[in-house]
Amino acid sequence: MTVTAHATTTFDLGPARALSCRECGHQVPLAAEFACVECFGPLEVSYEFGEITRAAIESGPNSIWRYRDLLPVPSDVDTQPNTEPGLTRLVKADRLAAALGVKSLWVKDDTGNPTHSFKDRVVAVALAAARQLGFTVLACPSTGNLANAVAAAAARAGWESVVLIPSSLERAKVLTTAVYDGALIAVDGNYDDVNRLATELAAEHEDWAFVNVNVRPYYAEGSKTLGYEVAEQLGWRLPDQVVVPVASGAQLTKVDKGFREFTELGLVEAKPYRVFGAQATGCSPVSAAFKAGLDVVSPVKPDTIARSLAIGAPADGPYVLDAVRRTNGAVEDVTDEEVVEGIRLLARTEGIFAETAGGVTVATAKKLIDTGQLDPDAETVLFITGDGLKTLDAVQDRIGPRATVPPSAAAVRKALES
Amino acid sequence: MTVTAHATTTFDLGPARALSCRECGHQVPLAAEFACVECFGPLEVSYEFGEITRAAIESGPNSIWRYRDLLPVPSDVDTQPNTEPGLTRLVKADRLAAALGVKSLWVKDDTGNPTHSFKDRVVAVALAAARQLGFTVLACPSTGNLANAVAAAAARAGWESVVLIPSSLERAKVLTTAVYDGALIAVDGNYDDVNRLATELAAEHEDWAFVNVNVRPYYAEGSKTLGYEVAEQLGWRLPDQVVVPVASGAQLTKVDKGFREFTELGLVEAKPYRVFGAQATGCSPVSAAFKAGLDVVSPVKPDTIARSLAIGAPADGPYVLDAVRRTNGAVEDVTDEEVVEGIRLLARTEGIFAETAGGVTVATAKKLIDTGQLDPDAETVLFITGDGLKTLDAVQDRIGPRATVPPSAAAVRKALES
Ligand SMILES: Cc1ncc(COP(=O)(O)O)c(C=O)c1O
Ligand SMILES: Cc1ncc(COP(=O)(O)O)c(C=O)c1O
Ligand SMILES: [Zn+2]
Ligand SMILES: [Zn+2]
Repeated sequence: MTVTAHATTTFDLGPARALSCRECGHQVPLAAEFACVECFGPLEVSYEFGEITRAAIESGPNSIWRYRDLLPVPSDVDTQPNTEPGLTRLVKADRLAAALGVKSLWVKDDTGNPTHSFKDRVVAVALAAARQLGFTVLACPSTGNLANAVAAAAARAGWESVVLIPSSLERAKVLTTAVYDGALIAVDGNYDDVNRLATELAAEHEDWAFVNVNVRPYYAEGSKTLGYEVAEQLGWRLPDQVVVPVASGAQLTKVDKGFREFTELGLVEAKPYRVFGAQATGCSPVSAAFKAGLDVVSPVKPDTIARSLAIGAPADGPYVLDAVRRTNGAVEDVTDEEVVEGIRLLARTEGIFAETAGGVTVATAKKLIDTGQLDPDAETVLFITGDGLKTLDAVQDRIGPRATVPPSAAAVRKALES
Repeated sequence: MTVTAHATTTFDLGPARALSCRECGHQVPLAAEFACVECFGPLEVSYEFGEITRAAIESGPNSIWRYRDLLPVPSDVDTQPNTEPGLTRLVKADRLAAALGVKSLWVKDDTGNPTHSFKDRVVAVALAAARQLGFTVLACPSTGNLANAVAAAAARAGWESVVLIPSSLERAKVLTTAVYDGALIAVDGNYDDVNRLATELAAEHEDWAFVNVNVRPYYAEGSKTLGYEVAEQLGWRLPDQVVVPVASGAQLTKVDKGFREFTELGLVEAKPYRVFGAQATGCSPVSAAFKAGLDVVSPVKPDTIARSLAIGAPADGPYVLDAVRRTNGAVEDVTDEEVVEGIRLLARTEGIFAETAGGVTVATAKKLIDTGQLDPDAETVLFITGDGLKTLDAVQDRIGPRATVPPSAAAVRKALES
């Protein structure tokens, strides 16, 4: 086992300069740290950005690496084996807009990523940073999508992987992790149990990069690219409102961070925008805290079909509350029934098949509109972050062929008429 | 019912000028025709291309519409609701190359398309052309991927869809078609039965565009974009060898056509390249004809896990034979056992999870190398055209978690050691 990960050397992590505590501001050098030694607050990457222009970004690769100068990765990151996620479609969703009664609506369709969820973004950044930090194994606890992304990225890089999942996970997510041939361990427990085990194991294995534990500060930055891409794809401007699904809450806070950085760097004009969070009622600790006007999030025991969002103790919950309150947004939650309707509505109107997390986003958007929280006249972007193929169980009882017929044209004709 | 589809007016189909018979060369005006009135040969689109430059293409959209001036679609095609497929990853596959014993290998990963197969390309072109030709319903007979793509594209465009599938299709492919809420009919029969029914129904419904039947000449052109993208992504040059899966054979012939057009237009330097076809032994009519030195393809009754390639009477079989013989390539076939190994090899080495058709491509490449047909020193591109999430059954008995353990670090530790 190599023990280089914690050595105090200077790492080439591009524009990243230090890790700063989100709570007390204490700074430490770049390293595989994730909690503040002063106050146990979470650490976040601080940068010193160079001159960054729209033209430079536009001439970069057709992946998140076009934003490499804004991420904690070396400048030659695109020459290393990795999964090249990003630059997924931003779809003008006029038919969904009509169905929801809003004027101008976009869907950021992140199902086009290598393993079909936004997790490829965070894992690609985590792998690139972990390589610089001296790790040799890629690991994670996961609610499913992260498992897929970690196992795939490790395979591509030729790294070993260790992936811990709740044993109750959807069949598709289990198989599409196992196929990459890393060490996949199913744990009889929920995600929060699995997460605790990961933290324990991370402390024992200094060469294991648990992407969302000991390299979490780097990992989480990958989600900034969702914000960057939306802004670039809108023609270098910010939308008025966004709706983002919330599990740990990292993604939502980083979309917001991406918008702020683009504004500070002059890549987009400054303007007010509103960030909304979406949860399933069966796991809605952040929504509950928002509605109760609290700053802290009380853990819950998840019970929802949106298993990828089933994090009962969300690490970034308080920062989600900060972001939505600062931007005049909200957090809302929807029932499993509404989640399935959301999946079907998006599929029927826009030809995009989302997983349960996407159903949460669409259904929450609908609820936010129906309750007057989201402005129907303002330009809105929905983040569809995972793929329907991974959560077929959620819809299988509602959909199927209209008819099964013998091989005759008459039989088909009759089936089509009825 | 509108009956405009067959009217002899001038349609705006961009650079397309006429339909020409592949057998006798007879030309007819652009219309919804697919068979020559003189000889019943298949019709193909003929063009009059304008000045086309690398720069113009590079400045186009990040989808197949960057090649709109080379396709039978109007020049404002990207302003119409459609699915924007294409510009999927071309992955440098060094680890797979090492495993196969070849020097320089690329994987064209078409799982990144909207419904995760290359069929989104052909359907997007078919929809764009069908709109110009006056159709109002999008339809197809399908082995699965086409069903997904047609149902999704129709939903996005707000068109009705009629999709016919064999009732034995994989659950994932059935559900991911049904979710888009078109008319999905399962037929108790194989693909060739379903295809016959579609031809019958197409004759009865003049406003139904059966993408791979009555608008097949336009539809098939969509696969040229696979060839274009590979050439552009290699830095505007052709590879030495490609391996392409063969069902009807359309895709293989169009990849070849794409390479030839790019050469004729001066977008790449002329150079010899070799085209190889890949089939599953359980449905290998084209491979059998190739090996027997025949020009015609005798239909077979398919029996293979590679159901998306299970076309026993391939419409473009003879043209596949032409293309591989002209380019000094070959057609080879592999067992279902090899298909599964191919899927696993690609996943393990490159982090890409392909469906059975991708397993066919990888396993055939291996066989072509092992038998000395494919040059291990020449630059090779493998076409991975469909997604593993849609054919989980093919691998489910071979893979799974390494262990299922109680929620204790000791249990995980022990499972990882064994
Ligand atoms: C599809 C999908 N969307 C959204 C999320 C939420 O991400 P976060 O934990 O950053 O809030 C997850 C988390 O696993 C996910 O799988
Ligand atoms: C994934 C996949 N690859 C390749 C093919 C072969 O296409 P073609 O019929 O053009 O030969 C198909 C056909 O359905 C397919 O689904
Ligand atoms: Zn602190
Ligand atoms: Zn003819």
